[in-house]
Amino acid sequence: MPKPTLVFSPLAEQLEPEGAFVYLDLAAEARRKGIDVISFGIGQPDFQPPREALEAIKEALDRGYTRYISPLGIPELREEIARYVGEKYGVDVKPSEVAVTVGAKAALFMTISLLTRPGDEVVVQDPAFPTYECVIRYAGGRPVFVRLAEERGFRLSAEDVERTVEGLHRVRGIVVNSPHNPTGSALEEKDVEALLELARRKGMFVISDEIYEDYVYEGKHASFLQAPDWRDYVVYVSGFSKTWAMTGLRLGYVVAREEVIRALEVFATNMYSCPPAPLQYGALKALQLGTGWFKPLLEEYRRRRDAAFEELSKIPGVSTVKSRGAFYLFPNFKEVLRATGLRSVDELAKRLLFEAGVVLLPGTAFPLRGGDGYMRVSYVLPVEKIREGFGRVREWVEKNAGG
Amino acid sequence: MPKPTLVFSPLAEQLEPEGAFVYLDLAAEARRKGIDVISFGIGQPDFQPPREALEAIKEALDRGYTRYISPLGIPELREEIARYVGEKYGVDVKPSEVAVTVGAKAALFMTISLLTRPGDEVVVQDPAFPTYECVIRYAGGRPVFVRLAEERGFRLSAEDVERTVEGLHRVRGIVVNSPHNPTGSALEEKDVEALLELARRKGMFVISDEIYEDYVYEGKHASFLQAPDWRDYVVYVSGFSKTWAMTGLRLGYVVAREEVIRALEVFATNMYSCPPAPLQYGALKALQLGTGWFKPLLEEYRRRRDAAFEELSKIPGVSTVKSRGAFYLFPNFKEVLRATGLRSVDELAKRLLFEAGVVLLPGTAFPLRGGDGYMRVSYVLPVEKIREGFGRVREWVEKNAGG
Ligand SMILES: Cc1ncc(COP(=O)(O)O)c(C=O)c1O
Ligand SMILES: Cc1ncc(COP(=O)(O)O)c(C=O)c1O
Repeated sequence: MPKPTLVFSPLAEQLEPEGAFVYLDLAAEARRKGIDVISFGIGQPDFQPPREALEAIKEALDRGYTRYISPLGIPELREEIARYVGEKYGVDVKPSEVAVTVGAKAALFMTISLLTRPGDEVVVQDPAFPTYECVIRYAGGRPVFVRLAEERGFRLSAEDVERTVEGLHRVRGIVVNSPHNPTGSALEEKDVEALLELARRKGMFVISDEIYEDYVYEGKHASFLQAPDWRDYVVYVSGFSKTWAMTGLRLGYVVAREEVIRALEVFATNMYSCPPAPLQYGALKALQLGTGWFKPLLEEYRRRRDAAFEELSKIPGVSTVKSRGAFYLFPNFKEVLRATGLRSVDELAKRLLFEAGVVLLPGTAFPLRGGDGYMRVSYVLPVEKIREGFGRVREWVEKNAGG
Repeated sequence: MPKPTLVFSPLAEQLEPEGAFVYLDLAAEARRKGIDVISFGIGQPDFQPPREALEAIKEALDRGYTRYISPLGIPELREEIARYVGEKYGVDVKPSEVAVTVGAKAALFMTISLLTRPGDEVVVQDPAFPTYECVIRYAGGRPVFVRLAEERGFRLSAEDVERTVEGLHRVRGIVVNSPHNPTGSALEEKDVEALLELARRKGMFVISDEIYEDYVYEGKHASFLQAPDWRDYVVYVSGFSKTWAMTGLRLGYVVAREEVIRALEVFATNMYSCPPAPLQYGALKALQLGTGWFKPLLEEYRRRRDAAFEELSKIPGVSTVKSRGAFYLFPNFKEVLRATGLRSVDELAKRLLFEAGVVLLPGTAFPLRGGDGYMRVSYVLPVEKIREGFGRVREWVEKNAGG
């Protein structure tokens, strides 16, 4: 316990650790114990950022780009993002409508904090990336959860949202994430249109976390930016972590109307001054490489998704939706829990780590009842590792079921 | 104005832009107009980070250190900071008592937010770095200002703090900054001891922003970490921006008792996941170079301080405290305002920029009445530039005084 002089704010206590990071630590512990761990736990691609991007960073260091810059990022990068996103979704985005941030994480922290007033209700998917809920509470707001149904492939439905907010009086907006962490679901064009129509009708803002936008294996990504009136209510969040494998470089971005960007400038000034300067030259170079760079990686990830799905299907008692996005699957382990007599996926996850050397994240890390009975699989491993990992899970289940 | 769906939180509106960044933009405007600008405006050293540190970053990029790491920073750097700070101040600091953050800025944002509960009162120097006040308000607290007296060389006095908090019932702590931005004052050993004694007696936390600790021109820096019981109430904040000229790399750190560090881990997880990974290898290398690296730079900065003081003394109506720390002086321009008939230092600063091509920051940017009538001089320029700059100011004053 902290000494009385170091008592913590109840607001700060709304923030919670993230399951993925907790399991990173647990996996390290297992490895120290000599266990050979295959991890489906961490949400980051296993490839390296483009060589050219890393070279551009080195050059920036040599050129002395190591000084404070604008809180919104270097102008060249804001311009390139405006062009890139604009072209990608066929919309007109101005550089003044772009903010570069310390990862999509900081973009979410700031935009949710900015738009949620104390007492406001904000709709969140359940399950979902845990930060949304924490930050809404931190801002003094109240998250309102809409359950994602397995039968609908975990795709958020506008009708469910409408039913949920009916009778609530302080609903201000919604945080949507597609392609989705942790289920891998990807909204279809018609889902997005229905959600946009609802938001428009109810006067709700839409913070749309599209960080997995390039990881779509069948069909095309449907972006909330495609609404012709996006400036009135859409705040688009994305970043360099997933497509360009730059997770450790901490660069994300926001596209939103200019007033929002100006408010983010003030927020960033007080929160961290500016995103790291030299790294932004790497991000700039990545965008200049264009979308072609990612194509072979997408093919590789599709093969992994297919392998993971196939192997999961062989595990007795496990059923899996074959999601078309991100690099996640969200298999249902309820039967396995029953058969093994375990009480929770958390318990199952720990047993699998220490007894089978496999990290699966319990669905309850995301962060509510919606994930109960499910496991998140992050298939960021070579196909043979994926097969080996699920082979181990299958063996463990076969050994422990009905025991 | 934002559309009704994009209304901003009144909490976020407590955050304000920082004067230094505003004047960066104004100076850029002046340069675009063809004005040759000499800027005393920005608080960053003009030298480059150590070559070896930049090489270490490049190597880290080559080695693939581009992935998510712990929210508290890479273990090697936390260990090195514990060793370095411990040695520097003759205290025992454990790696688990260190957090690496996205600049001292983020360290301040998180620690102030963590320790300030809604309704709490927190003491702040006036003038001071504007972030303190903004973040206290953002956290729902109330800043309580203690004026720094020019006659005392702008050094915070424990008696003044005690007098100010007398009769207040929700005073929780104090944010101290020495060496001080914007006045350059540096607390002496006895000042620090008196403040520690007061904090201990009143049960106040001390967030001590010591980012300018290595910029002390006479005598030694007095750190709040030197209290034998620091773990009970001191939160020490510093970083790589000033000593190592790494402003654009955004790396700072906190030393505090373990419970505080664990709470910062959760905070950072939700705010930005982790500080940028590869850059931390540069910071690590910098600390390994040791304090010898900075010695010649300190000599150079002393020469600059002396030159700036000398030149300021030649300007009619300006009086200046010869501060012994940071790279700031805080000359009193009240006589100049009177003589030129200008109403504020803000007005004076704009006239000097556009008519004399010199950036001085109005003292009111820091952020209250304490800076009224003063200008902040950041002497981060070669001696001849310093002389030229203040020569211009003198000319301008001579031309406009009594006019
Ligand atoms: C849905 C979602 N949003 C945002 C992020 C954070 O991305 P970044 O690394 O850009 O902060 C993640 C990372 O796992 C994520 O899964
Ligand atoms: C007093 C003070 N604290 C903190 C900071 C922020 O430093 P950093 O670059 O590490 O965020 C500054 C920067 O100007 C400062 O003057």
